[in-house]
This record gives sequence, C-alpha cells and structure tokens, in this order.
Amino acid sequence: MKSFDKTFGVLGGDKRNYYLAKALKDDGYKVRLWGFDKLGTMDCEIASALDSDIIILPVIPFSDDENVVSPYSNSNLNLKEYEDALKDKIIFTGIKDKFLSAFPDMENRVSSYSDREEFAVKNAVPTAEGAIEQALMHSDITINGSKVLVCGYGRIGKVLSEMLRGMGADVTVSARKQSDLAWIKLNGFAGIKTGDFTEINSYNFIFNTIPSLILREDVLRELSKDTLIIDLASLPGGVDFACAEKCGIKAIHALSLPGKIAPKSAGEIIESTILNILKEDDG
Amino acid sequence: MKSFDKTFGVLGGDKRNYYLAKALKDDGYKVRLWGFDKLGTMDCEIASALDSDIIILPVIPFSDDENVVSPYSNSNLNLKEYEDALKDKIIFTGIKDKFLSAFPDMENRVSSYSDREEFAVKNAVPTAEGAIEQALMHSDITINGSKVLVCGYGRIGKVLSEMLRGMGADVTVSARKQSDLAWIKLNGFAGIKTGDFTEINSYNFIFNTIPSLILREDVLRELSKDTLIIDLASLPGGVDFACAEKCGIKAIHALSLPGKIAPKSAGEIIESTILNILKEDDG
Amino acid sequence: MKSFDKTFGVLGGDKRNYYLAKALKDDGYKVRLWGFDKLGTMDCEIASALDSDIIILPVIPFSDDENVVSPYSNSNLNLKEYEDALKDKIIFTGIKDKFLSAFPDMENRVSSYSDREEFAVKNAVPTAEGAIEQALMHSDITINGSKVLVCGYGRIGKVLSEMLRGMGADVTVSARKQSDLAWIKLNGFAGIKTGDFTEINSYNFIFNTIPSLILREDVLRELSKDTLIIDLASLPGGVDFACAEKCGIKAIHALSLPGKIAPKSAGEIIESTILNILKEDDG
Amino acid sequence: MKSFDKTFGVLGGDKRNYYLAKALKDDGYKVRLWGFDKLGTMDCEIASALDSDIIILPVIPFSDDENVVSPYSNSNLNLKEYEDALKDKIIFTGIKDKFLSAFPDMENRVSSYSDREEFAVKNAVPTAEGAIEQALMHSDITINGSKVLVCGYGRIGKVLSEMLRGMGADVTVSARKQSDLAWIKLNGFAGIKTGDFTEINSYNFIFNTIPSLILREDVLRELSKDTLIIDLASLPGGVDFACAEKCGIKAIHALSLPGKIAPKSAGEIIESTILNILKEDDG
Repeated sequence: MKSFDKTFGVLGGDKRNYYLAKALKDDGYKVRLWGFDKLGTMDCEIASALDSDIIILPVIPFSDDENVVSPYSNSNLNLKEYEDALKDKIIFTGIKDKFLSAFPDMENRVSSYSDREEFAVKNAVPTAEGAIEQALMHSDITINGSKVLVCGYGRIGKVLSEMLRGMGADVTVSARKQSDLAWIKLNGFAGIKTGDFTEINSYNFIFNTIPSLILREDVLRELSKDTLIIDLASLPGGVDFACAEKCGIKAIHALSLPGKIAPKSAGEIIESTILNILKEDDG
Repeated sequence: MKSFDKTFGVLGGDKRNYYLAKALKDDGYKVRLWGFDKLGTMDCEIASALDSDIIILPVIPFSDDENVVSPYSNSNLNLKEYEDALKDKIIFTGIKDKFLSAFPDMENRVSSYSDREEFAVKNAVPTAEGAIEQALMHSDITINGSKVLVCGYGRIGKVLSEMLRGMGADVTVSARKQSDLAWIKLNGFAGIKTGDFTEINSYNFIFNTIPSLILREDVLRELSKDTLIIDLASLPGGVDFACAEKCGIKAIHALSLPGKIAPKSAGEIIESTILNILKEDDG
Repeated sequence: MKSFDKTFGVLGGDKRNYYLAKALKDDGYKVRLWGFDKLGTMDCEIASALDSDIIILPVIPFSDDENVVSPYSNSNLNLKEYEDALKDKIIFTGIKDKFLSAFPDMENRVSSYSDREEFAVKNAVPTAEGAIEQALMHSDITINGSKVLVCGYGRIGKVLSEMLRGMGADVTVSARKQSDLAWIKLNGFAGIKTGDFTEINSYNFIFNTIPSLILREDVLRELSKDTLIIDLASLPGGVDFACAEKCGIKAIHALSLPGKIAPKSAGEIIESTILNILKEDDG
Repeated sequence: MKSFDKTFGVLGGDKRNYYLAKALKDDGYKVRLWGFDKLGTMDCEIASALDSDIIILPVIPFSDDENVVSPYSNSNLNLKEYEDALKDKIIFTGIKDKFLSAFPDMENRVSSYSDREEFAVKNAVPTAEGAIEQALMHSDITINGSKVLVCGYGRIGKVLSEMLRGMGADVTVSARKQSDLAWIKLNGFAGIKTGDFTEINSYNFIFNTIPSLILREDVLRELSKDTLIIDLASLPGGVDFACAEKCGIKAIHALSLPGKIAPKSAGEIIESTILNILKEDDG
C-alpha cells in the first residue's frame, strides 16, 4: 500500500498538530482533524477521525486525567473508550512510553517520531531561535558584540552557537570530549572544557544545553550581575535557580520552545518525520 | 583642556541616556544625571547638572510642550528658564534642528551625535536585532529555512541581511545601483532590482529599510497571505499599511528599535560617538 | 539602436579578453575576435574585427612599442595604421589614459570599464581568491586557526576578510576612519587603527591592501620570522620589500591577480560592465 | 611519571614529523630527532634517538624495503636491527597495522594517533584547504559565485562545505542519511541524496569525499565539460578517472593533502593527539 493513499487522523495537540494536519493536506493527503474547534476550523467528529489508516497523537499524548491533550478543543476525548477502533491502526505519537502505559499491548502498532535522529536535529532550530528571542527580550544589550558562552555542543549547542556567531556575538563553546573541542575550534569558536570555566565573569549571556547541574553555586558566584542565563535543558535543568535568584542573576528556564516560537515549522518537522518513517516501512 | 577632566551633565531622555551616563561614569568621567528619579537612582538637582562643562540632551531634546523629554522623571524641565546657564557649554543632542528652533543663536555650541557616520553604522545593529525579534514574535515559522527579502542595502540592510543569513535564512536583497547589486551578489545573497519584484509571492518575510513607498498596492496584491512584512523605514514608512490590512497581510511598522531592544548598547553608542567628537576637537 | 544588434570587435589582450569574447557570444551577440591565433581558436582578420560597431581593447591597451597588447598572437597590431577605421566606433578599454595618449582626439568615443564602481567591486573577488591561493601555497600552516591581519577595509579588504573568516581564520582588520572601524567591529572582526599596530608579532599572515608604505622598517622589525606578508597594493606596494628580505621575512607582492587566477570570471566581469554601460547609454 | 619529564625520539617521516618534533620542543619537552639531515638541522644519531621514553614513527612507518620512511635523510634505517631498543618503549605511529606486521609482538606497546577521533577531525582542515588550493589552481573561474557540489557530509565534507560557502560559493551537499540531510539543510546548504544527482550538469566544481565509486560513467556523461572534479577519497577514490578522461572532464585525485599543504599544522595535530593520549593514560 502506498502511503499516499492512506488517510490520516490527527487527534488533539497544540498548534503543531494543527499545522501538521495542514501540511499533510497541502501535500495531497486525506486528513481528518479533531480537537481544534476553538479555532473554528477543519474539524470533524472523533469517530470520523478515528476511521483513518494512520492516527497521529500529540507529542505528549495524554494529560493526567488520561484524556488526549487538546487545549484547542471544548470537548474531552478519552481514547480508552475507542480502544477497539485503534486496534488495526498505525499510530504515531511523540512520547511512546506515555502511550504504552495506557495501551500496553500496542507496542508493535505505535511509533515515536521524536525518537528519530532527524526529528531531534530539525527541532534544534526552533529551540535555538526561541533561545535567541529570549535573549533579545530579557536583556538591554545587543547580541552583536556581546560575549556568549554556550554550554554543550550537541545538536542544540551546534545550531545555537552558529546562529549567535551569525548575529555577531563572540562565542565560546564548552564541551568535554577532545573530538568535540576539535570541532569547536575548527568551526571558529573558542572552546573550553565544561566545568573548567575560566573568566566566567566576562560573559554577557550563558546558554546551557546540558541536562545536568552545570551552573552550580560555585560557578554562579563568579558571574557578573549583568549576565543573563538561558537554560534550555529539560527539567530539572542545568542551573541552580534558587542560588541564581539569591545572587541577583537573571536565569530563565526556557522549555518547549519549538511549539511556542514556531508551531508551523515544528508541525512540518513532525509531518516530514512521519512521512520518512512510512516511506522506509514501505521501501 | 583634556576632555577627561570635563564634567558631563546628562539631562532627561529614555534609558539610553541613563546607560550613557553610566558608561561615562564607568569610563572615569564625572557625571551629573537629571531626569531618572522614577528609577530612584544616580539623580541630582537640575542646577547641579547644568553646572557641567558638557551638556547632553536626549535624541529628540524637547517634547511638544517645550520641556526636555524625560519619561523617567516626575518633574518637568523647561530649559528656557536656564538659558543663561547653557551659554558657555558644549552641548550634544540627537536632532540638532529641534534644539536650534528653541535656541537659534547656539548653532556653534551644539553638536549632533546622530549626524555622525559611525553613530548611524553602529545603530544599525540594535535596529537589525529589533527587526529579528519582531520577526520571531509575530510569525509561526522559523527564520532558518525561510525565504526572506530585504529591501535596500544601506547600513541596516547590510547588517540585517548578514544576521538573517547567519540564522540560516535564504536571503534576497534588493537595491538600485549596479555597484550595490555587485556587492549583494559577491556577499553571497541573491540580488534583485528594487521595484522589479519577481516571484514576490515566495517570501516568508519582507523587511523594508528604504524610506519611500516601496511596498505599494500592486506589490502587496501579489504577496502570499502568510508573508510577514516588517518596515524599518522612518515615518511614513515604505509600506501602504491600509492596503496591507485590506489584503489580510500582517505588516508591522517597527520604529525606534535601538532604545527599545537594547538601551544599554544604544546608550554606549551615543557615549562613544560623543567621546570621538570631543577627541577630534581636541586633536 | 538596441545594443543586442551591435557587433563587437575584441582586439588582443590576455585570456580575460578571450573569455569576454566567449561570454558575449554565449549571450547572443555577434563577436569578432583578433589576437588569439596561438590558441588556434575563434580568430579573424584584423580588418574584419575592426569592422564592428563596438571595439574592445585590453585592460592596458598598448605595449611600450605602441602595439596592441596581444600575448596570444603571433602577429603585431599597430592600431595607428587603422586610425580611420576607429573614427566612428564606440571603444572600450581598461585604462583610458593610455588610449588617449595615442589617440588624443577620441575622448568622446572611448570609455573605461575599469572606472566603473561595479567593475572594481567585482574584481575584488578574484583578487581576494588569488591572495588566498598565495597564502596556501607559500605557508606551511592552515589558514583555519591562524591569526590574520588585513590592512585596509576598502573593497578588497572587505571581501578578503570575509573569505578568510569563512575559512576559519581569526581576522583583525585595520582602518583609519571611525565609521570603518565601526563596520569592522559589527561585522565581527577585531579592529585596529592602521599604523597603531600592537601585538603585530602575533600574526601568521598579513595581507596589505593599502597603496602606501604601511609595513615600514619599524613594523617589519617587530614581526615574527614566520609571518607571511602578501601585498596586494599596486606598484610600488605597501611593504618595504628590501627591509623584509633583510629581516628574513617572506613578503610576496601579488599583482594583477584576476587575470591570473580566474581569467574566465575576470573576462565575464568586463563583459557585464560593458553591457551595463551600453544599457545606460541606451536608456 | 608525568609525561612532561619524558624524552621523545622522533624517527623519520616527512615535514610533519619535523614540525611535530619542533612543536614538542617549543612546548618544553626533550626531543631527539633523526631523519632530517638533508635539512641540516636538529638531527641526532639513531642510537641516541632510540634512547628515548617515547618513540614516534611516521604516519606510514615503513617503506616497501622495510626501512623507516625518511625522505629527508641520506641514510637508511632498518628498525629490525634495533628491535631490542624498542622493547620497553611507548611507541606511536599513524598506521598501526604496518608497524605490527613488522613487530607482531608489540601490540600493547604501540598506539595509533590516526585512530583517534580528534586527529581525524583536525586533519579535515588541511585536507579541505588543500582541496580549495587545487580548485583555485586548476580552474579559470572564482569559487565565489560558482555552483559547487560536495559529495558526503562526513568530517571533510562538513569542513569543506563551510569553507566553500565562506568564500561565497553556492554549495549543495549530498548525503544518504535523513539526519545528515537535516543537518545539511539547517546549516543553510542545499541537500540532495547521494546518487540521486539531478541537474548535475549545473555544477562548476564537484568535490568527492566518499570512498566508493560515486562518480560513475552514467554521472560523468551528464556533466558539463567545464566541471572540475576534485576527488579527496583515498585510493582507489570515488571517480571513474578513465571515463572522465574519455569524456574530456578534468578530474584530480588529491591525496595526502595535510602533509603537502600545511606540514606544520599537520605536525602540530599529531603532537596534540599524542599528548592527549599520554595525558589520558596518566589520568
């Protein structure tokens, strides 16, 4: 079966799912969208949406009360009530574990798009742009000409340090591995070992991308009061926020940026990842 | 007399003047600041501020009611009442004409820092960053991967197109002169002649920097509804805003960005320009 | 008369003129080329070449013995013998003065393409690439990771410093004017005042673009013996070459790079400049 | 034992080993160098060189006649004769296998610096610069403004595509993996799937970095005659060179570039890799 003939049922989620549905439609697929009646658009009955070959759930599929996360709908949807309808479907969601804890026997029907390397790579872009927006909004200085430290040279660190340099910042990147430090240097950045923070008081902005406690009390105490910290690491983050507040240092924990800063791009990233997975399964 | 021994009296203005005063102080100068009592800081009596060798007024020195522009003060200052005190001072302001219409006989005492080439060049940076912040805030897509048109390759056009490219946009720049088009091309941008807008419906963002009516009805009608226009040209701007609204196209007139996005950097730009002028007068 | 209907007679010159003729032909013009019989191609009789509406001479039109510069021809061409044939032609050459000293009464018939701003801008590209080739050939180190000084921020300085940074060099640019220093800084380079060369011994490469004696004995004596100097300024250049040799410092005077490194691009630059001039004259 | 106290014996090799010895010396280590008597410098007796704690051999340690590769020496060195002296040493070489086929029982004494990730990363730089030098030397056009295809987005592909873009080329990169294609796109390049070469005739330069036959007859037949191919893949390379010649397409197999273009940088890369290995063994 060519995936082009399949019908997609998109259930709930934030604006990313709305734009994902729109992108599928623009690419010629049949799409049934449920969960956006507040936007007054493109919506259909839940039964009709479920009567599709492929079901797409939100990044985090279920809220605490076990309903499908659907902030743009006035109705609730408890998928348990439709368990039979799911049985023969191909299902996509962001966090597979959350789905499986509700439907433990569907392991072989459900795929996570957020497990895919290209999804994570592409999502680094809206995350980095969201970080830049935060920096622009919460400081009184320009990024151009400022001294910036980016902690970590993974996907987000790589994209963010290039963008900051592209705006004219003087960028230092921290990493642990020798090969990462080699990349950092040959890409034209100053490189320091994560943890060995010398002259840490000279930075105007510090962006953390490492999901462990990097900016601890001993580091925070060395900082200039004017430094702005933007932490991009998922909860609990890489900053001792309580200590930062005591020290009078502004520290922002910026989470879930793609859906906030660029839901259309983020939705299209989900779409292209799902289409890639389907293509490979067909191939 | 070495300018280092001079006393600066900074009167009113927005946060740029506050940071300008701070920068002068940090550089070792004696500074008397009036007009920031709302911030509860560094303030002095007007008589004392006027008893300085060099008087610095806001970019636009006077409001319509002829008082010194001072949004951060609870008092009013009508400088006419202190005309005698100004007589033997060196005076700086942004817009000299506005000062001279109040004090027409002081032509040879007053200098405009905003007339200086390096001031205009440096101010292009906070303007461009403010434009990027607007683009990030008002769109649902990332700049990276988007198609962008920058109209005009003057100071702001140059800085902005580099920054947008640095974030990963696909940037086209428009200009009129053959030599500008040569620069645009060799700097790696696509170049088109201003006015000869082909495929104008393919752009996600259009930034205008040209102070004349560039985005007229005939152009606006060609645009995609998803295009976001950010006009950086001073009043009345380069966009037919009424027509844009009728066409359902989002168009933002973003003015006075340096003072809004980066008052500290903008204040330091004023400071370094004034110090350059004083140095040259000494030299 | 539309220039598209005109015939071009291209006389002599180096490979730039050969490629210029080829480019005109590829663009649909009628072209008669003289002076490339050594390459065994596209050549015609001088009388036939002169029987064209527009005559294009080499950048430097005449050699010392007053013949047309034609290194790729086995014949000589003394244009004096064909003076009558030139009388009603439109004539292009690089250096107009050299043409006028032979034909002083043709002031209003002859145009210099090398006087045009866009010609100079575009030629900065092959000059910069030639400078980079020299640096790669004459040093034992990579440009990436090296410390580079570019003296002068005119056309060549601008293009060259961007390219060197693009290869990963740590670039400092020198200039005199405050507005140039502002551009240098906001474009992300370190800036120093030309002449105030501090820490000059830290550079691996120095590129000079300023046509006056910048690298004098006092500067050269401060340099590291490993520094490679590449002087791009036209004769006599900006380096005290005798002193450099005495100091054991390698200094290369790299001249006329566009014709050497990229004659095809350089010929196409001449072509587009001539076509621009003709278009404007028509318009 | 701190490695700082150790003595290094550097045996033979090309200029990289010469500069490696020099770098060790400049960093404060005791160094004994053998094999550079043709350069008339720094040389010592073989016995003395072998009487060191750490022995460093060339990248490819032995020539076909089993002598140490030593192009800058007038003598031969058959290390077999000194087997006993090697017994208690730490030994470094580039290609470990070549060493072990001569001394099979020394597995635990010998390390390969070229197996290290940071070595490979850093060597991508001189390789990329060598590729650019080849492109500049063997074409009549500028890189700026040209259309370039880089096949492969491994270490060399990444560095090379950035440098080419930095010089102003319009760069397309080919890769196979979706995540690599995501990186290519978000880094601002056009991306195509390796093998699916559409519009392949539009490229001025093609750089291959993939060690398998990518540019086969069917691809070569599509190319413009003006395309310059530079193959960086190790023997046998990724180009059907016989077919390229038949098609009249210039194809250059550029091998071992680091030692040729930048022996000093390449030697320093070896030095820092060896010091990193020693530090980790100590740590």
